Amino acid sequence: MEPPSRTEHNPPLYQLIFEHMLKRLEQGEWQAHDKLPSIRHLALELEVHRLTVFRAYKMLCETGKVYVKDKSGYYVSPLKDELQLTVTNLSSSTSSSSSNSSNSSSSSNSSNSSSFADIQRIPAHFQFSQALIDPSLLPNLYLSDYVKKVFDLYPKLMGTYATVQGDEELREMLSQHFHEQMGIQLTAEEMLITSGAQQAIHLLAEMLVGPMDAVLIERPTYSIAMDVFRSRGARLLPVDITEEGYDLEQVESLMHKYKPRLFYMNPTHQNPTGYTVPSWQRKQLVELAERYNCLLIEDDAFRDIYFAEEPPLPLFAYDTFGKVVYIRSFSKYVAPGLRICAVACRKPLIDSLVSAKSLVDNGTPLLNQKIFLHYYTSPRLQQHLGKLRIALQIHKEIAEEQLAAAGWQWTSPQGGLNLWAKLPDGIKTQDLLQAAIGQSISFMPGPLFDPLGKFESWVRLSYSFTNETVLREGVGRLVRLAERFGDEKG
Amino acid sequence: MEPPSRTEHNPPLYQLIFEHMLKRLEQGEWQAHDKLPSIRHLALELEVHRLTVFRAYKMLCETGKVYVKDKSGYYVSPLKDELQLTVTNLSSSTSSSSSNSSNSSSSSNSSNSSSFADIQRIPAHFQFSQALIDPSLLPNLYLSDYVKKVFDLYPKLMGTYATVQGDEELREMLSQHFHEQMGIQLTAEEMLITSGAQQAIHLLAEMLVGPMDAVLIERPTYSIAMDVFRSRGARLLPVDITEEGYDLEQVESLMHKYKPRLFYMNPTHQNPTGYTVPSWQRKQLVELAERYNCLLIEDDAFRDIYFAEEPPLPLFAYDTFGKVVYIRSFSKYVAPGLRICAVACRKPLIDSLVSAKSLVDNGTPLLNQKIFLHYYTSPRLQQHLGKLRIALQIHKEIAEEQLAAAGWQWTSPQGGLNLWAKLPDGIKTQDLLQAAIGQSISFMPGPLFDPLGKFESWVRLSYSFTNETVLREGVGRLVRLAERFGDEKG
Repeated sequence: MEPPSRTEHNPPLYQLIFEHMLKRLEQGEWQAHDKLPSIRHLALELEVHRLTVFRAYKMLCETGKVYVKDKSGYYVSPLKDELQLTVTNLSSSTSSSSSNSSNSSSSSNSSNSSSFADIQRIPAHFQFSQALIDPSLLPNLYLSDYVKKVFDLYPKLMGTYATVQGDEELREMLSQHFHEQMGIQLTAEEMLITSGAQQAIHLLAEMLVGPMDAVLIERPTYSIAMDVFRSRGARLLPVDITEEGYDLEQVESLMHKYKPRLFYMNPTHQNPTGYTVPSWQRKQLVELAERYNCLLIEDDAFRDIYFAEEPPLPLFAYDTFGKVVYIRSFSKYVAPGLRICAVACRKPLIDSLVSAKSLVDNGTPLLNQKIFLHYYTSPRLQQHLGKLRIALQIHKEIAEEQLAAAGWQWTSPQGGLNLWAKLPDGIKTQDLLQAAIGQSISFMPGPLFDPLGKFESWVRLSYSFTNETVLREGVGRLVRLAERFGDEKG
Repeated sequence: MEPPSRTEHNPPLYQLIFEHMLKRLEQGEWQAHDKLPSIRHLALELEVHRLTVFRAYKMLCETGKVYVKDKSGYYVSPLKDELQLTVTNLSSSTSSSSSNSSNSSSSSNSSNSSSFADIQRIPAHFQFSQALIDPSLLPNLYLSDYVKKVFDLYPKLMGTYATVQGDEELREMLSQHFHEQMGIQLTAEEMLITSGAQQAIHLLAEMLVGPMDAVLIERPTYSIAMDVFRSRGARLLPVDITEEGYDLEQVESLMHKYKPRLFYMNPTHQNPTGYTVPSWQRKQLVELAERYNCLLIEDDAFRDIYFAEEPPLPLFAYDTFGKVVYIRSFSKYVAPGLRICAVACRKPLIDSLVSAKSLVDNGTPLLNQKIFLHYYTSPRLQQHLGKLRIALQIHKEIAEEQLAAAGWQWTSPQGGLNLWAKLPDGIKTQDLLQAAIGQSISFMPGPLFDPLGKFESWVRLSYSFTNETVLREGVGRLVRLAERFGDEKG
């Protein structure tokens, strides 16, 4: 790295102290509501000025992990309690965190993942909170046949370990497939097989992101990714995504100002919005990445779930600089029970990823890779995908019919599993969720997807998990529930 | 945590700087042989005394990640090159690192895992470097039948995600099994399913270990565990293991002096030695763990692979304080292709582990869990295990016959997959390995298992991977090769 950026990287003392305290907090050295060492005490211990510790503590408050009580000191925020409040008792909705005497409610409430998981766990007949595909839409019997076939082909399969990087036959097949489908030149050595996209994101975060590193992230975005980067202590810088894609001036200005290490993006049928970043922006983004030395982490989970036409080529296809890491997961629509994902990038990054994977779990189970390989290359999968696209498009249209009459606003997605919709004026998503759960309807409230915790009048409705009848009935009920809310307000 | 230990935790300034630089090194900010910022430069930047930076750099040198050139400055150690030298060209053997102008060859050469994997990758007809079970000793056809049965039972299995904590039916079964087998009281909520033991170790390291934290580790020990803890920047403190177990005075004195966060142990048919820590020590270790607030991470991969009699109860069975984390993996002898491991511990630790797992991969694939569940509870497995124990004992005895006549020293293991043997005087394990590979024989040299890099006249011979004929022939050849070495020296 060239000298100028090195200089910029050298952190001030208060940041080192911030990082150090952050680590101790994460290691659970203190319980919720425990008092941290006083500023005076820590300054004495570390032989630094009190103002330096003060600045470090201020930064800790900004992360939401610590709160301040006037004249009394600094205390550990009760994350667990807060989550449970948000989830099991949604009554206080967006103001749930006000029950803590803290300023931790602001931009970076740290773990959305639990609220996410907990909402999904609430039993609901009308299940619109899970961006998963109804298992009856998957060809289970055929899959079962394929599994048997795989065992005939590899009789000692269960007795064999996979290599760390992943089954070579699978990597060869996928690199050829990427070439045919997207014109991407790729060798099997430039690919790693992981257990799902999330493991890939986590590996990359572990390798690349440290405390206070700037990370660009879409707004709104997939909530678990925020959690992963936050768990590394990253500062999340939101990049707005709309139906037109990004504002490239905003992207450039953020890259210029904050020198982010990476930009985590989901540019094709994005989760939660369903938006797709246009081709012309993709080319320019790769150039920006090169100019500002910022890796683009392209999460491409919904490429094969398109409705009218195939989406534009991935950013990775334009990357001649080795600045894009391409995460392509298949689990959702091939077989969620398998958890197979491919990560492609150039040397030397791929080597570091393989090393990281070797420490993390020493390789994805071979069984899952071989089953995936054989099913994915079968004609049956192409038939299945064709049918699945039509089924999901019908699902989407059923949901849209219900919303259309009721004054909800949304951009019709051209692929993916979700509708991102704005509620009629005056309705808060958390209030609606609370009432909806009472009627056995669940969905995801907007703020969970926002690094800034806003989008309070937005919902993500997943139309993929219930059958058509339940979907029509449930969205109808939800829409009428929202109407009654509107009437009460008016 | 009580005030005194908090005070002890407050690190001096040079340690904060050490941690900060370590992170930047790990993030790849510099390439091998790049020069780090000069002491003067960094001291100026950070507004600290030059001596403080000097101490931080000295610590970096001790990790082996940085080397010093006289009068010229501090440079990044070429880990990759070093590994490749060690592995693909074993000619310079133990002195391989001397080709780098560095002092990085000492105690903490950081990544053994690659040398480990690379030795295993060397094609060898007489394959004694892999502690894996010969796939033909596994009941592959029956396994294949069980898989089909599982698909009949759960026709939508492939379309379903697992929960983060692991399949409830599997956790219920295992907690009952642990109760029956070892008298351990455990609920399904106190267990997490991971993808192999290594993922469990990695999750725990991520949760519990930060830079410069002290970690107790057996000497010798399982090499990959060292790499995982080192990747977190831990200081490894070796605890000697012999055929009598540990020296409890040594353990207590280390706990007292260094306040380690955890002790990673493999007390039953240990890898690589095969030694088993006696019952009386197990009880006392749990008390020491409580007294010194040091978690015991008990890796119990070989419990079911015993020869004459069942091993003593795990430490976890004596733990009434919640100070033991019990890692029980089954992959090796049930089905390596599955990668299933159970981690058991008490609240609140188990909750943190589940949260960490949710970020890492959001759950082990359900397919693997259900197959394991049904196979593990079948009468077939018990038959298989009985046969496997006999087969492995015969393997062990075949290897021992060959060693006995040749003056090698070892303690006959009562279980597990390995013989840990001392070579006749004057023979270096690395020299022997180099010659052995020329004869298509591979084994693991002792230094790879040693946090201090010694054990230069020891070998780990895995007797489990080849069939009886190949084993007898190969160990015979190895022994004769060593004899010729001895003759040349004498």
